[in-house]
Amino acid sequence: MRVIGIDPGLRNLGWGVIEAEGTRLRHIANGTIHSEGSDLAARLVTLHDGLRAVIEAHTPDTAAVEQTFVNKDAVATLKLGQARGIALLVPAQAGLSVGEYAPNAVKKTVVGVGHADKVQVQHMVRHQLPGVQFDSPDAADALAIAICHAFHSQSAARLNAAQLGRSALEVTAGQARIRRARA
Amino acid sequence: MRVIGIDPGLRNLGWGVIEAEGTRLRHIANGTIHSEGSDLAARLVTLHDGLRAVIEAHTPDTAAVEQTFVNKDAVATLKLGQARGIALLVPAQAGLSVGEYAPNAVKKTVVGVGHADKVQVQHMVRHQLPGVQFDSPDAADALAIAICHAFHSQSAARLNAAQLGRSALEVTAGQARIRRARA
Repeated sequence: MRVIGIDPGLRNLGWGVIEAEGTRLRHIANGTIHSEGSDLAARLVTLHDGLRAVIEAHTPDTAAVEQTFVNKDAVATLKLGQARGIALLVPAQAGLSVGEYAPNAVKKTVVGVGHADKVQVQHMVRHQLPGVQFDSPDAADALAIAICHAFHSQSAARLNAAQLGRSALEVTAGQARIRRARA
Repeated sequence: MRVIGIDPGLRNLGWGVIEAEGTRLRHIANGTIHSEGSDLAARLVTLHDGLRAVIEAHTPDTAAVEQTFVNKDAVATLKLGQARGIALLVPAQAGLSVGEYAPNAVKKTVVGVGHADKVQVQHMVRHQLPGVQFDSPDAADALAIAICHAFHSQSAARLNAAQLGRSALEVTAGQARIRRARA
């Protein structure tokens, strides 16, 4: 399973792509899409086209976006919301499912505690993805989001498989009962 | 000049298209794009595709989006920001310039006072666009934004034309001076 994690921001949008096979993770690529200037609509087009090019180049199967920390500055929240709209839109346009994770959930999955600092998160991302070089702090965050999504998706898949397995057993048991009843 | 006004919202995105020739305005169409459900990324795709279809159908020359009122509810501001990101993105992708107007600027242009209520705004929109039927309150707001943008764009164009006219006179005067100097 190939996962893209996205850390949305209007000025710097971080992204990171990893591959997950069971508990083994592999770094594919990470980077940052920059947008500047006074024309907000043009900046959003830059983020949109940049992110679309990344998805086309690295063909992830699923995506995850950080559930933005809502701070007390409403202007900053609105800006972030605009960038986040693009970060959610582009993978959905490409047909990918898009997971959302709160920053604390990402930290808890990657580091083990919900209140880890950035240095601890980057340390654990390096540990999980040996040899990785971060394009930017936002790209490192995006890789952490991807790791979180890979873990949760695989847990969900294992749970589904376990439930399917149990259902299959139940079906078999039911058929055995039916056969006994017929005999 | 054909103008699309957009009143962004995640649940209801209002749009309105008008045509402006000098001071004469004409209603073309207005409507509302709805999105519902728990999958935020899918909702943003609905808004994106709906707005793109509107722009393709009504071929505006320019667009305007309300500069969202930032209220004190950060969660609502973030949601609005996400919808607003799409409202800015789609016309820019279609190659349109995208103006932004604060709600008070829209009211001041359409009604004459910055603190007009919704009923006053709708009354003046009906007055400017005789026979118009509003698809929704959000669509009425979008038409008000379009009227505001038409007015400001035409004022800017007249100002540019006046300045160009003066520049042309200056060039002519300069050439006359050059001819006199050569003679």
